[in-house]
Amino acid sequence: MKNPLLKALIAAVALTVLGIGVASAADPLPSWNDGANKTAVLDFVGKVTQKGSAGYVPPAERIATFDNDGTLWSEQPMYFQMIFALDRVKALAPQHPEWKEKEPFASLLKGDVKGALDGGEKAILEIVMTTHAGMTTTEFEQIVKDWIAKARHPKTGKLYTDMVYQPMRELLSYLRSNGFKTFIVSGGGIEFMRPWTEKVYGIPPEQVVGSSIKTKYEMRDGKPVLVRLPELNFIDDKAGKPVGINSHIGRRPIAAFGNSDGDRQMLEWTQAGGGVRLMMLVHHDDAKREWAYGAESKIGTFSDGLMAEANKNGWSVISMKNDWKIIYPPAKK
Amino acid sequence: MKNPLLKALIAAVALTVLGIGVASAADPLPSWNDGANKTAVLDFVGKVTQKGSAGYVPPAERIATFDNDGTLWSEQPMYFQMIFALDRVKALAPQHPEWKEKEPFASLLKGDVKGALDGGEKAILEIVMTTHAGMTTTEFEQIVKDWIAKARHPKTGKLYTDMVYQPMRELLSYLRSNGFKTFIVSGGGIEFMRPWTEKVYGIPPEQVVGSSIKTKYEMRDGKPVLVRLPELNFIDDKAGKPVGINSHIGRRPIAAFGNSDGDRQMLEWTQAGGGVRLMMLVHHDDAKREWAYGAESKIGTFSDGLMAEANKNGWSVISMKNDWKIIYPPAKK
Repeated sequence: MKNPLLKALIAAVALTVLGIGVASAADPLPSWNDGANKTAVLDFVGKVTQKGSAGYVPPAERIATFDNDGTLWSEQPMYFQMIFALDRVKALAPQHPEWKEKEPFASLLKGDVKGALDGGEKAILEIVMTTHAGMTTTEFEQIVKDWIAKARHPKTGKLYTDMVYQPMRELLSYLRSNGFKTFIVSGGGIEFMRPWTEKVYGIPPEQVVGSSIKTKYEMRDGKPVLVRLPELNFIDDKAGKPVGINSHIGRRPIAAFGNSDGDRQMLEWTQAGGGVRLMMLVHHDDAKREWAYGAESKIGTFSDGLMAEANKNGWSVISMKNDWKIIYPPAKK
Repeated sequence: MKNPLLKALIAAVALTVLGIGVASAADPLPSWNDGANKTAVLDFVGKVTQKGSAGYVPPAERIATFDNDGTLWSEQPMYFQMIFALDRVKALAPQHPEWKEKEPFASLLKGDVKGALDGGEKAILEIVMTTHAGMTTTEFEQIVKDWIAKARHPKTGKLYTDMVYQPMRELLSYLRSNGFKTFIVSGGGIEFMRPWTEKVYGIPPEQVVGSSIKTKYEMRDGKPVLVRLPELNFIDDKAGKPVGINSHIGRRPIAAFGNSDGDRQMLEWTQAGGGVRLMMLVHHDDAKREWAYGAESKIGTFSDGLMAEANKNGWSVISMKNDWKIIYPPAKK
């Protein structure tokens, strides 16, 4: 039986007849338009969950990994974590009068973000370390929580946590209701994501993998703390993603979702495990409802090489414009 | 109601009356003798699971961390992973004729382990890197699986996975049946443990934290692999344990179990979270059924300082001799 909807319906009827009851036979992906990509998801889940079938995967091995920036939430005009860092520079400026004369801070404080980022990687690293290190892990968690609760996107005016993709939230729930463990595997900071991923995506902190700086255990006033050091620990991007997956999860995913060149190796690693696999890339082609960008973009680059690899390897490319009925969750009333 | 057994009994009766049925009102820790330590476990679980009580902890935050060597399985006359490494040296020797003249291998191959280890940390590191690096993660997993399935302990003649502590296995199950997530946080190698912890302890790979070497993603014959490099990545011991917990779990445990000076900081970090907490140390005082060692032992040192800190902070010290009815799982018939 190839039609997963029909199969679900028959299963639901069978359960009802047996008197066990069933949660819902409704569409598990209501924000997805019908089409090849929605079918690919339903088919995949049908295959790996059907006991006795060749593609069956035991629940413990149903690992799905998701990139975050550009895959679960927006990432324009720059990574939201970078906006957080810039906001922190402004908040900390009164304690740093020397920043008025010192780049990249001087430009930033004059509102010239582009000028500040002209300093390239060195400038970005300095901004990140200044704003992400020097406090305890507990203090940083609170700083992130305070920011994410209030800060609003410069273009949409929305809270950043309202700029998550509703179709992907449905996909996360659908996978979990089929016994999957869902993980984030992001180039973003692990401790920048953990304070809010459980509430927003249903993904608990122990299932978040990301980039990190080093921490150090020490006693302060007789109480142990972990202090965040201005020293890179791990970059969870590109070839770092399979390394991060191996380090944190210790199993190979059977499904992986990304949107850019930074996700290529994660999808390769997932596919190389053999058996039934699902690899999908979100393509940002919806200038009207979100943003349209690809090979030419510095943020979330989707190169021609990645597109060629996707076509060659049978990875699904999701068109935000055509595959998704809505982008963001409906406004709460 | 302070008596947890009485409480469990009443709950069981209530459930039976309601016709819901109940798994078992039987003792969840049958291999533990009655006494202060068993009571401490039952009381703790009773408190954190009782809705509406001051000590209640939601299931998502019920994190328990366990050291492995000396806490979940034996560790004498040397860490079992070291025995694995020595066995690997022997297995690899035919491909390395130069080892006959080169320490620490020359001594090892003559059966003089003590002589080999006289080279101290440098010798140990050389043995570990030679035997743990240079292959892919998939190859290493298979090497560990093959060894753990067959190798036997020099004194007991048992498989190493039969030298796990039955009372601790019951404790793991008991915590999980009360909504806890159980993690290993060990100084041992993360990839040495993951191939067998799910089967032996019910702990899946993604809930194992340990020491690690670096890995590198690369293509071999068109297939992606992760190659294990002879370079330390992280030492998950002493002050490294809270760092590893923060990195992998991202939440503070509410219960932590160890047996040596290497676990001190993990227990401190757990306790410092406030609220109802359980910190326990296994004390090896059973020369007849296992081993007796403490402050003077190089392996699993339980110093006088640790004992003083345990007493001062109210950490429970488990006497293997007095608290445990049996040490290892009963032989299968």
